[in-house]
Amino acid sequence: MSQLFQHLEPSDSHFEPDKDEVLNAIRWNADGLIPAIAQQYDSGEVLMMAWMNREALEKTLQSHRVCYWSRSRSTLWRKGESSGQVQKLKAMNLDCDGDTLLLQVDQEGPACHTGRRSCFYVRLEQNKAWVDQAPLIDPKTLYTNKP
Amino acid sequence: MSQLFQHLEPSDSHFEPDKDEVLNAIRWNADGLIPAIAQQYDSGEVLMMAWMNREALEKTLQSHRVCYWSRSRSTLWRKGESSGQVQKLKAMNLDCDGDTLLLQVDQEGPACHTGRRSCFYVRLEQNKAWVDQAPLIDPKTLYTNKP
Repeated sequence: MSQLFQHLEPSDSHFEPDKDEVLNAIRWNADGLIPAIAQQYDSGEVLMMAWMNREALEKTLQSHRVCYWSRSRSTLWRKGESSGQVQKLKAMNLDCDGDTLLLQVDQEGPACHTGRRSCFYVRLEQNKAWVDQAPLIDPKTLYTNKP
Repeated sequence: MSQLFQHLEPSDSHFEPDKDEVLNAIRWNADGLIPAIAQQYDSGEVLMMAWMNREALEKTLQSHRVCYWSRSRSTLWRKGESSGQVQKLKAMNLDCDGDTLLLQVDQEGPACHTGRRSCFYVRLEQNKAWVDQAPLIDPKTLYTNKP
């Protein structure tokens, strides 16, 4: 862990480290990415997890529209650009060892490409698995290049 | 994405795929791990993100006590084994493309090694960063090999 994060551990609330120093100390993975969890800010529902590179993170902080890095398409992915289901950023927090982000967002409609509100719909138990959410809308209606 | 997850996409709630088939289709990373987000089941607070290998995942489902894989120590890490701050599993869900877990847990005390309830305490904004949670307890009191 970087010295910066160790230095922050005993800090009281409201301590302000240098923001660029924090970004420089983020533990990006071998592909230069960090996982970002998106949580609906008012209901608390965890909607999805995706990945950001530094450009996506900075664009998200600047624009307050959440921008990820698409690992499958190797491109910036402004959430909602093809589905219309945008995510507005309410708050962004980094964790204690600087390798995971938690985003408080306001998600319009379904966050999941399957038309479900959340991506986490496959329930696992010791002896069985089941789908615990139905799609809200038909995903065929999602990808129509809405602005 | 595996055919299994594509097959589940249009499923209604309550559809039951074969549990072992689901575990076999999980997209473990190059180190055989999957990220697991822990959320307090009643308050909705996102507490931490850590990693599981298949053994940790199965132990968690069997015992209802959350077990991760410690990347720094290369060993199974039964959450709370050295701090006493155990996590009981309430529910486990896998996401749409089988590469992230969401755990609903009941966390005793602080989840974070710094003595904070949540690991996500470094707030980032466009022009500043700050610590937005104070420790609940002195972390020196956490690691005393409680049972």
